[in-house]
Amino acid sequence: MTPHNNPETQPSPTQTVSSHTVPSDEPVKVVVDAMGGDDAPGVVLDGIRQLFASTDPLDASIQLILVGAADAIEPLQLAYPDRIDVVATTEVITMNEHPAAAVKQKKDSSLVVGCHLVREGKGDAFFSAGSTGGAMTAATLIIGRVRGVRRPAIATVIPAPKGSVVLLDAGANTDVTAEYLLQFAAMGEVYAREVMGVAHPRVGLLNVGEEANKGSQLAQDVYALMADNIAGFAGNAEGTDLFRGSFDVIATDGFTGNIVLKAMEGLVAGLFGELKHIFYSSTKNKLAAAVLKNDLSALKDQLDIEAIGGAPLLGLAASVVIGHGSSGALAIESGIRATATAARQHLPELIASAVAARG
Amino acid sequence: MTPHNNPETQPSPTQTVSSHTVPSDEPVKVVVDAMGGDDAPGVVLDGIRQLFASTDPLDASIQLILVGAADAIEPLQLAYPDRIDVVATTEVITMNEHPAAAVKQKKDSSLVVGCHLVREGKGDAFFSAGSTGGAMTAATLIIGRVRGVRRPAIATVIPAPKGSVVLLDAGANTDVTAEYLLQFAAMGEVYAREVMGVAHPRVGLLNVGEEANKGSQLAQDVYALMADNIAGFAGNAEGTDLFRGSFDVIATDGFTGNIVLKAMEGLVAGLFGELKHIFYSSTKNKLAAAVLKNDLSALKDQLDIEAIGGAPLLGLAASVVIGHGSSGALAIESGIRATATAARQHLPELIASAVAARG
Repeated sequence: MTPHNNPETQPSPTQTVSSHTVPSDEPVKVVVDAMGGDDAPGVVLDGIRQLFASTDPLDASIQLILVGAADAIEPLQLAYPDRIDVVATTEVITMNEHPAAAVKQKKDSSLVVGCHLVREGKGDAFFSAGSTGGAMTAATLIIGRVRGVRRPAIATVIPAPKGSVVLLDAGANTDVTAEYLLQFAAMGEVYAREVMGVAHPRVGLLNVGEEANKGSQLAQDVYALMADNIAGFAGNAEGTDLFRGSFDVIATDGFTGNIVLKAMEGLVAGLFGELKHIFYSSTKNKLAAAVLKNDLSALKDQLDIEAIGGAPLLGLAASVVIGHGSSGALAIESGIRATATAARQHLPELIASAVAARG
Repeated sequence: MTPHNNPETQPSPTQTVSSHTVPSDEPVKVVVDAMGGDDAPGVVLDGIRQLFASTDPLDASIQLILVGAADAIEPLQLAYPDRIDVVATTEVITMNEHPAAAVKQKKDSSLVVGCHLVREGKGDAFFSAGSTGGAMTAATLIIGRVRGVRRPAIATVIPAPKGSVVLLDAGANTDVTAEYLLQFAAMGEVYAREVMGVAHPRVGLLNVGEEANKGSQLAQDVYALMADNIAGFAGNAEGTDLFRGSFDVIATDGFTGNIVLKAMEGLVAGLFGELKHIFYSSTKNKLAAAVLKNDLSALKDQLDIEAIGGAPLLGLAASVVIGHGSSGALAIESGIRATATAARQHLPELIASAVAARG
């Protein structure tokens, strides 16, 4: 699971989106922040090497613009001169900086320069495993929003065993209106259909009960709006539905979304910690646990962000995906792949249509 | 964990509390709703039999007024004539009824009659494993609030391995003010100290980040209020802190609290379901799982509500505890015991003092 901090998104001028999407049979050019992530740039370069080792034709069509410290990234460019362009930068926005201030001050940071490359049409999409708040702020200010979208949202795919669910907003917008929530649901519906391949996504509103008259006044207002405007609206989703496979998309405000994701992340970590404690508590348990080890590791991996690779920021004029700060090489590889897929599917254009259709 | 539905609490006249608490060396008279719970009345009677089998002097000082269908409960009264009084009722408020309407219409329900017995001073405290919303509504309207308390809250004890945490509000108040949240924190602090025995409870505000300037405008306003008014305020708690043992009390609104508890409940159920699936997937796994069975069952039990027995409703003029609808006999037993403990500790009086001290 991917909890994200509140990035204090600012409104920004809206952009037209046509220049930022590419037909699916053409190469995709993904701008990659080489400096994003706890173990960057090394882990980013490792992820790219893994991606380039793939023989899948779609993977082979991915081109990169690598943005970051020249001395660190140029060797990889020399190894793959046909697939990598380098844009050297001298600054890095860290996880602990105030996003708006950092984006304003660090003009030569990999985040800011990377977003400018997309805005100028030199790249189609942007991937970073750096500061979520920094990326959200830079992308919103520089790349801009899809016309009609009031607030971009962070989507997070919860990899539940009985069916993944897209939860949004996962932390970009702590104070929301009914209109924002309606747009989150519409954007999530597009993502589930186009990127996750769910033909008719079941869309829910996160609430404290099933009935239309449950919950806060805002939730009750939004229920009525969603019933009228979201094709796949399937009613209120409760907290238990986040791990039950009963919905494909669950819309909520960024305050609730962030807290519930972090609670689930903490609970998974805590439970596996307790299991490990049990497994090491005696010789007979150690022997039994050794038999189960592979299956349990597979379950843990399934619940881990590594398999997903990143949280898409929806509502921006180009495809932008943010990887978890603790991403390993596999997460970087799958994150860049997810970014390319989002660009190929014309997500910003489809979101523009979905939002426009609802006034 | 104990998720609770939103009971649509109504404001009510406040009450003085002195008649509803008892000195710790006197018998406690707990009013028990015999009709509350999915398996009531049978499971309630079983729980009482277990409680009465205890030789602990404090348990032996618990007297009951059993409220419900006469034919079901009179046999138990005949078995324990010195410890049980019976008040016969003819109606039951179910989980699926609208709380306010049901409390208004069903004057001869066990919930309504039970609350009246406490209000009239015939019992000291009230326990029900029935509808949380119904109990909250009946208790608020009939027993009344502690003077100065704006809204009663449902507290839930999350039995995390590294230390239990009291989360409130767990669903009574979906729309809150800064003042309500401040009072939730103050009430939770009293509960952790007096009932859970934590000398200096660490009190947190559930939020999306650690820093004072994180989160919704409401959360930022409440942070400042808590810093000035809550002795044990230890800053913002994130979702991961719900299972980390880093706080003793975490205050939030009933919307977020309900959703996060249900998410954790769903995740625990889902993970143990996946573990069971792994354990039965092959003969060698079955053999290994048999070795680990007792330890894993102990972990599952530890995370289960059975060991806790109920959610106290804080801010009412008498001690009221609501058991989980799916309570077994052990949960009923421990729930009645927790209700008696809360009454012995003068919780309503202590909450009145705590709230009055903060103006």
